[in-house]
Amino acid sequence: MTLILSNDDIEKVLTMQDCIDVLDEAYVELDEGNGVSRTRSDSFTRTLRPDALYSLKSMDGIVPKLGVGAVRINSDIVTWPTDGGKTRRVKVPSAPNKRYVGLVLLFSSETGEPLAIFPDGVMQRIRVGAANGLGARYLARKDAQHVGLLGSGWQAGAQLMAVTAVRDITTIRCFSPNPKNRESFADEMSATLGIKVTPVASPEEAIKGADIAMCATNTLEPVFFEKYIEPGMHISSIKRPEVETAVIKRADIVVLHSNDGKPIHVIAKGIDVSEAKEDKGWGIASEIDFKTLPTLPQLCNGRIAGRTSPDQVTCFLNNIGLGYQFAAAGSVVYRKAKAAGLGTELPTDWFTEDVHP
Amino acid sequence: MTLILSNDDIEKVLTMQDCIDVLDEAYVELDEGNGVSRTRSDSFTRTLRPDALYSLKSMDGIVPKLGVGAVRINSDIVTWPTDGGKTRRVKVPSAPNKRYVGLVLLFSSETGEPLAIFPDGVMQRIRVGAANGLGARYLARKDAQHVGLLGSGWQAGAQLMAVTAVRDITTIRCFSPNPKNRESFADEMSATLGIKVTPVASPEEAIKGADIAMCATNTLEPVFFEKYIEPGMHISSIKRPEVETAVIKRADIVVLHSNDGKPIHVIAKGIDVSEAKEDKGWGIASEIDFKTLPTLPQLCNGRIAGRTSPDQVTCFLNNIGLGYQFAAAGSVVYRKAKAAGLGTELPTDWFTEDVHP
Repeated sequence: MTLILSNDDIEKVLTMQDCIDVLDEAYVELDEGNGVSRTRSDSFTRTLRPDALYSLKSMDGIVPKLGVGAVRINSDIVTWPTDGGKTRRVKVPSAPNKRYVGLVLLFSSETGEPLAIFPDGVMQRIRVGAANGLGARYLARKDAQHVGLLGSGWQAGAQLMAVTAVRDITTIRCFSPNPKNRESFADEMSATLGIKVTPVASPEEAIKGADIAMCATNTLEPVFFEKYIEPGMHISSIKRPEVETAVIKRADIVVLHSNDGKPIHVIAKGIDVSEAKEDKGWGIASEIDFKTLPTLPQLCNGRIAGRTSPDQVTCFLNNIGLGYQFAAAGSVVYRKAKAAGLGTELPTDWFTEDVHP
Repeated sequence: MTLILSNDDIEKVLTMQDCIDVLDEAYVELDEGNGVSRTRSDSFTRTLRPDALYSLKSMDGIVPKLGVGAVRINSDIVTWPTDGGKTRRVKVPSAPNKRYVGLVLLFSSETGEPLAIFPDGVMQRIRVGAANGLGARYLARKDAQHVGLLGSGWQAGAQLMAVTAVRDITTIRCFSPNPKNRESFADEMSATLGIKVTPVASPEEAIKGADIAMCATNTLEPVFFEKYIEPGMHISSIKRPEVETAVIKRADIVVLHSNDGKPIHVIAKGIDVSEAKEDKGWGIASEIDFKTLPTLPQLCNGRIAGRTSPDQVTCFLNNIGLGYQFAAAGSVVYRKAKAAGLGTELPTDWFTEDVHP
């Protein structure tokens, strides 16, 4: 049977700790060269709405040690509204019932069969958090207690779940520009984590004294500056442009999630999906050769050292998502969902065939 | 509702003529730059069977004019047995009930929603035939009547359906090495097409006097040689290595299916998926710069001329499959299947989400 799972099912079974641990194991396999990751491809064409584009993205990964492969697909109507001079990327939920379309197909790498099909949203959030959590596991001081967070969105919550899964955090200060947002976020996360999250009125207040500074925003411009750095600080970002180039140059250890590099862009004629508009800053900080930076899989595999002294300034940059992460996290979800009897079972024959394709 | 279709459903609704016509239209869009095609990626790792590999392939395409995008996925256990000195690529049907795994996900490029999910096998066969059919539409003599065919497998049948859809064919001679295979193939295809298919004992007998020579084999070595060429002949191949390099050099017009080039290979360490073994001869005929050859989309769009005189020797090489073909053919299948009430409807909410992924 092939399992159809919902975001609710995935939320029930996939803990942040699960995801961090399975990624740690899977990244060792990736660095060893046994697992493989196919870089995300982004295809863009025009669509009915003149102010929008249709975007079809896919990424693949196989973790043979876990017996799985995955393809993650996003089928989006995308707009780029400008708001106070800043351009944001906004997906328009245009599917029936005003819904978004992101799917993961999980396959067995031992039989080829489709094991499960599920939406990507909950896993997306957890796996982004988990990658930054792994960065903190290897790069933050072991005795790190204080977290400063910039951002109060959905990813910001996952970042806190991740950092509290790998360190004994005692205080969290959170800044985001809208007071109402940061206050309700702080209330909600205090309850979720059982750790007091304090909303503060400036980024400086959030970061000052933090052992771990986390950026989890949706802007395409820097929010963390060199002047914020303190000795021994670990800086964590969910996308490269959040951190000023000077920070990357100044840090003692900088680790990139992956050197998969830029996504493969396949773009219809006459469409402008320039770097500034779409790709979250692949073009920024050109003084730095990102290809030469160490990566998280190397760090997990012990091929490069993590933090070696308490005063080092460390920095983890989450640059690109991998289908590989969905395969690894998918293996946990599948196992636990089967055990818990979650989801809808459909005949695997519906998704397989007797003709040699 | 999202439609789950079977190969039987697709066989009922997708005629060769449909597929040729919709590809003709879609290729114009592709050549105009409105449609986009993301080159196939092939990821390989080890699997449980020591003599096999796990292969996860994907290809994407969007045809905005038809309002669709598609991702085609193959999840295969692959072996390469050697048989009489020749290496063949053999997929092992390892999914439950000894089945293969090839899936197409069809999306709306107007709303992003998943319209349909179906196996790729029947469409795979028809779209390969249809591409060669389009090649014949633009390159074979208008009065072509005689077909010589090398091969008697599943693809060979589709090649005959395609050529008879675009020309008034009166005689077909077919050779393949195994007399039993070619005889039963000839019987079956005579009945299907209503045109006498005659099995013959040598490739020369099949090709001599043919207006259209078609290769549809599963070998990775040449089966059509320069010495077979006759004035005015159109030569059609389902994969590049079937046709000797000298043929390509000698032909007056050579058109390639696509200059998408080689697939993107992502291969685990220590695995040998050398060109000879896997990629159907991307490396052959290095004297010819395939990137400079005209392509089928250019031909359909009239950017390059087809046949201009009855004596020209023309050649069409089907080199790589495109996700784009599955999108185009998928749009026809979806429309006709909906109208005919075929398939199983599942709630689209199962494959969409209310969280911003």
